[in-house]
Amino acid sequence: MTPSSRAHPLYGLTKNRIEALCDNVFSIALTLLVLELKVPEIPQSSVDAELLPRLLELAPKLQSYALSFASLGLYWLSHHFQFHFVRHTDPIMLLINFLILLHIAFLPFSTALLGDYPHSRVGVVTYGGNLTVLSLLMLVHWRYITGRAGLVDSGLDGDLIRSVSRRSFVVLSIFALAMVISFVSVEASTLIYVISVLSLLLPVGLHRRRRHP
Amino acid sequence: MTPSSRAHPLYGLTKNRIEALCDNVFSIALTLLVLELKVPEIPQSSVDAELLPRLLELAPKLQSYALSFASLGLYWLSHHFQFHFVRHTDPIMLLINFLILLHIAFLPFSTALLGDYPHSRVGVVTYGGNLTVLSLLMLVHWRYITGRAGLVDSGLDGDLIRSVSRRSFVVLSIFALAMVISFVSVEASTLIYVISVLSLLLPVGLHRRRRHP
Amino acid sequence: MTPSSRAHPLYGLTKNRIEALCDNVFSIALTLLVLELKVPEIPQSSVDAELLPRLLELAPKLQSYALSFASLGLYWLSHHFQFHFVRHTDPIMLLINFLILLHIAFLPFSTALLGDYPHSRVGVVTYGGNLTVLSLLMLVHWRYITGRAGLVDSGLDGDLIRSVSRRSFVVLSIFALAMVISFVSVEASTLIYVISVLSLLLPVGLHRRRRHP
Amino acid sequence: MTPSSRAHPLYGLTKNRIEALCDNVFSIALTLLVLELKVPEIPQSSVDAELLPRLLELAPKLQSYALSFASLGLYWLSHHFQFHFVRHTDPIMLLINFLILLHIAFLPFSTALLGDYPHSRVGVVTYGGNLTVLSLLMLVHWRYITGRAGLVDSGLDGDLIRSVSRRSFVVLSIFALAMVISFVSVEASTLIYVISVLSLLLPVGLHRRRRHP
Repeated sequence: MTPSSRAHPLYGLTKNRIEALCDNVFSIALTLLVLELKVPEIPQSSVDAELLPRLLELAPKLQSYALSFASLGLYWLSHHFQFHFVRHTDPIMLLINFLILLHIAFLPFSTALLGDYPHSRVGVVTYGGNLTVLSLLMLVHWRYITGRAGLVDSGLDGDLIRSVSRRSFVVLSIFALAMVISFVSVEASTLIYVISVLSLLLPVGLHRRRRHP
Repeated sequence: MTPSSRAHPLYGLTKNRIEALCDNVFSIALTLLVLELKVPEIPQSSVDAELLPRLLELAPKLQSYALSFASLGLYWLSHHFQFHFVRHTDPIMLLINFLILLHIAFLPFSTALLGDYPHSRVGVVTYGGNLTVLSLLMLVHWRYITGRAGLVDSGLDGDLIRSVSRRSFVVLSIFALAMVISFVSVEASTLIYVISVLSLLLPVGLHRRRRHP
Repeated sequence: MTPSSRAHPLYGLTKNRIEALCDNVFSIALTLLVLELKVPEIPQSSVDAELLPRLLELAPKLQSYALSFASLGLYWLSHHFQFHFVRHTDPIMLLINFLILLHIAFLPFSTALLGDYPHSRVGVVTYGGNLTVLSLLMLVHWRYITGRAGLVDSGLDGDLIRSVSRRSFVVLSIFALAMVISFVSVEASTLIYVISVLSLLLPVGLHRRRRHP
Repeated sequence: MTPSSRAHPLYGLTKNRIEALCDNVFSIALTLLVLELKVPEIPQSSVDAELLPRLLELAPKLQSYALSFASLGLYWLSHHFQFHFVRHTDPIMLLINFLILLHIAFLPFSTALLGDYPHSRVGVVTYGGNLTVLSLLMLVHWRYITGRAGLVDSGLDGDLIRSVSRRSFVVLSIFALAMVISFVSVEASTLIYVISVLSLLLPVGLHRRRRHP
């Protein structure tokens, strides 16, 4: 081993370390989402009359909270799935992971924006943009690690690689399309995000017969 | 191994990873609880006269802080206990864990609500609802992993499975009953939660003679 | 193994899990301290004239931030030192650790209080009380694990056990005394905490000749 | 092993534990940065007209958010690189790591300050000071572990040690110089930080041909 290769900034950076950093950011973002839910401030004299209606006003925030929680769960699952096949790391892969983390960490802000202004196109586009870029980065990550960089197990099945790519591309397209649709109807756009995330998350349960070691 | 089984989103997701994610969310929620305690803002001229009474006004918030801390400790313990027996993971189990995390991450909000409006039925019912759903999800998790899904050690004693179920069901019933009681007396309801959590946590200490490797 | 021992809530709870939970709470508390530092809000027209003086007003907050950071560092070190000798866990030890975490997680609040009202006896007593109870809990933890519960390596040297107890008792006494002194002089009390923490932290550097595997 | 050496506060503190604490603080600081981005509060009647312009006003905050995210990524990478060679720990090294963490945890505050007052010399100097001290501490850490303390692999190449020192010194000098330049032009100073961080981060991608185990 020559000194120059030893001096490489990624020397010794295994996939476990990158995965641990990502797991940490995922779990912190999951838990920070709730900080955007603020308890309404009501004078003690009118608590009985006002607290319930004021809490019900938080409904859009609760919806965006649950949607972001489910989305983060999905991205976490997808991230693990990809890392399962990783055998080597390289600097470009690390940069893609940093970009993924940047957008994961940004999600509490987008979520708060959507929760505060659920009927605003700007809010929906910002939120949808966050999810779209995340989906794009996940696809880029998959293509990169399975492509010429050769960072995955060399025996990995070509059909699997293509089917995951195809699936990611479909999700990405739907998320991008929903942004465009917001210029016609903000509500339709939001609905597409909710349905997409649920339809990605719930079928997970259809595989229940198979055990995983 | 066929490509389709490899493409399964849970491929390679061991119980350790799920447990690590849960542990992270537990510890972050535990530490975020304190963010709901705000230092009172008092003009410097009247600090001497007002700081102490204003801090004493925080007593209900401190109580809900301590109660939630103890509850999170209990759920963490219970979660570990269940995971100790887990041998396999499956997607439904993962979904149940995501739902558990959603309600763990939500607890700082319920805690703040109870701390701000300790005498309001809405506050107590929201808080109690959070604990009740968590208890229900823990019971569902236990029944699922020990049930037909067969995710635990197959030699696990049937008496143990039933006694844990029974105990969880009793806790769940008390938590649900306390919500109903809040329609008669908010204070009685809160008291039931405090006594329940303490009576679950303190007896832990009665086993002190046994060592655990 | 009988069913009843298997049903024990601590079954499978190794020292590593408790230590990991504590490490997480320590690191989150360390990083949350900074949230109490708020950037002053100044109209853009008077930023040049007012930003620097307004930042300088944050000096007491910066001091309490640094003091709490150093204290958390010390408790983290002390906690690791104690856990190094642990061989078994038991429920009482777990309860003591939960109480330690409760007071670690509370420190960002005490720190904010001291930073906002550095000249108030109430602020100093609250902060000092937090450190004093933490020191007491660390001593209780040490006495418990090395005492009849026998949770440490049985070959652990009796002189070491006693010297650590003695040292912890001295720190605890100084921290408690500083609380009393605040009734004479708030500034003297604060000074004792600063000097104590520094005098505990800095000598760590005197052992520099020894390597640790 | 004598009792006194056993009583050493670092007994059993391996590099893994220190690294885990640092990794945790890094990931929490990364995720907390976003908390400084606040959703603008706008009356529902004027959301359509005002939300977009109000979000665009957040541009300086987004820039400082991205800059700090990239900087934390760099320091994380640099920290791992250094720890890769560590074989032993000692108390001084631990103190340096505590000081590094103190300044990592402080970065969300500096970032918020720069985001709120991007044209103020005080903001830029504070932010630049934070990065400069961090770079200085990283250099001190490298010199210490590779110096007489002998905490790294004894076969570590002398050329590598010197080239890393030299590179760190150059970065440190540029960061310090940018602080001085802020007295001539605040914008030039900010630009230097942006260019420096990008020029440190992007070339990481030039090594893409090499795999890392």
